[in-house]
Amino acid sequence: MNIAMIRAAAERLAGHVRNTPLLNSPFLDRIAGRRLWVKPECLQHTGSFKYRGARAALSAMEPHVRARGVVAVSSGNHAQGVARAAAEFGVPAVIVMPSDAPRLKIANTRDLGAEVVLYERASEDRDAIGAALAVERGLTLVKPFDDSQVIAGQGTVGLEIAAAAAEAGVGRAEVLVPCGGGGLTGGVALALASEAPGFRVRPVEPEGFDDVKRSLEAGRIETNREAAGSICDAIVTPSPGEITFPILKAHCGPGLVVSERDCLHAMALAFSRLKIVIEPGGAAALAAALFQPEALEGGDVVVVASGGNVDAALFSGALRRFA
Amino acid sequence: MNIAMIRAAAERLAGHVRNTPLLNSPFLDRIAGRRLWVKPECLQHTGSFKYRGARAALSAMEPHVRARGVVAVSSGNHAQGVARAAAEFGVPAVIVMPSDAPRLKIANTRDLGAEVVLYERASEDRDAIGAALAVERGLTLVKPFDDSQVIAGQGTVGLEIAAAAAEAGVGRAEVLVPCGGGGLTGGVALALASEAPGFRVRPVEPEGFDDVKRSLEAGRIETNREAAGSICDAIVTPSPGEITFPILKAHCGPGLVVSERDCLHAMALAFSRLKIVIEPGGAAALAAALFQPEALEGGDVVVVASGGNVDAALFSGALRRFA
Repeated sequence: MNIAMIRAAAERLAGHVRNTPLLNSPFLDRIAGRRLWVKPECLQHTGSFKYRGARAALSAMEPHVRARGVVAVSSGNHAQGVARAAAEFGVPAVIVMPSDAPRLKIANTRDLGAEVVLYERASEDRDAIGAALAVERGLTLVKPFDDSQVIAGQGTVGLEIAAAAAEAGVGRAEVLVPCGGGGLTGGVALALASEAPGFRVRPVEPEGFDDVKRSLEAGRIETNREAAGSICDAIVTPSPGEITFPILKAHCGPGLVVSERDCLHAMALAFSRLKIVIEPGGAAALAAALFQPEALEGGDVVVVASGGNVDAALFSGALRRFA
Repeated sequence: MNIAMIRAAAERLAGHVRNTPLLNSPFLDRIAGRRLWVKPECLQHTGSFKYRGARAALSAMEPHVRARGVVAVSSGNHAQGVARAAAEFGVPAVIVMPSDAPRLKIANTRDLGAEVVLYERASEDRDAIGAALAVERGLTLVKPFDDSQVIAGQGTVGLEIAAAAAEAGVGRAEVLVPCGGGGLTGGVALALASEAPGFRVRPVEPEGFDDVKRSLEAGRIETNREAAGSICDAIVTPSPGEITFPILKAHCGPGLVVSERDCLHAMALAFSRLKIVIEPGGAAALAAALFQPEALEGGDVVVVASGGNVDAALFSGALRRFA
């Protein structure tokens, strides 16, 4: 896992992935007390950065392997990313989703051309189902984060940040990234360590699901007590991965933890000041930049707004409270 | 008024204006029955394309004239565009706004550094107030649309569309533009007539305020019966301008008219499928592309989403009805 893999992924993704712009607003700068730059990956295909890693993984496969199809286990953004990438290559995709996943997400995944296999969250082991499907049908499993090619794909976000920040004259910054299993955070950290050494990446997690922050403090992989129960569902994972954690440990500054309330508030400010739609988990880094300025250093902060797949009712609730 | 002025404006705006991306979604393509490309000017500084024209006008002024300051008459997006451009040049801006304008828009305009002069919509003549301020204080009036430099600035949207469409391999398309006084529509039409002759621009207006459509049909400037009363307030003007109308007449296809209901529906689809926030008037072109496919020709349609300055309550209402 190294910068060359990220550069190679960027070449394979060129013309497919959107190079999302770097947004800012004087109103947000004032709240943050410094210049705040937002990388809106909600504007990426399928509404989140996950498409990058999925397309990177599929494009790295041997054609005869890829042709047999892929399988992924996901209730959300990874599902849609893999479904779209598979459709683009014209290969089958099977997505294992919990039967209680939002109907819209199930429908979207199907509409992107994937076969959806539902499982019961309480009684069935989703990873075992995915593994069995892989063996039975000769499919290749596309993991959500602990895979070198997936990390390389997510790392292209870091290459784009480095290029756009250089153009904006930003040479030093803290870079806050919403963090689940560490695929995006690790990829961005690796990319910036090479391309923009004045930048320091810091993972941001929701309260109660701060496995990465605690793992970085302990120097070893720690696990969350709860498996679910946050509105920031997109970035809730039990623990950092075996491939991602060493990268995070080598390249990231201390983790940050944000409240659900601050995520909702950040969503409302992104609505009114940037005109973008972000989901609670995708707003975690923005929330930290806006409401924990004392935890950051320097005059510039870059945040990744990692996804925008949010229900209308939840979004309207955030606006009612904070806009 | 010619393409050279638009190119010159683009050079002056480089590094200041955001080159907004061209977005798309397979879900929207399916509704539209063709490939649909969205130019999200809601992501422009100040939340609408108006900043382009304002910055183009101010940057074209003689420095000693500009230094005395500018005045604009606007209740909405033009106000914020002029306020920001003036602040960037460090010159005074006076914005004449109705006393019943949304408090947030008044506050934003002030926060961008402008002096706001309020007038009573029922009893006072806003243009007279603007003209008097210009004379008394030596300010230069920045008109909202009927000014060559303003049109040139808005025309840079067309240059960007031409470049991005060429990159996407789109050689022929209908280009739908939300149309008030015709500054944006005219600028885009002039730019595309030169840069992408396979493209045809068509103005889109809300029901009851279709002065441009009727003017194009009649071959002379027609006026709306009502002066206000649409949720698409950003694109409600009495009639096309004396500079803009000849451009529209020379370069545009027939106008389209959309219902408020379809604009709200388009806003909800832009939320769920593109993760962008657009205001009712800014959604007019998208509404036409989605819900009047029979009125369009060819396999590709480009729509400008011209602005995103919408109140949270109105936005949530659109989501409640249609998302």
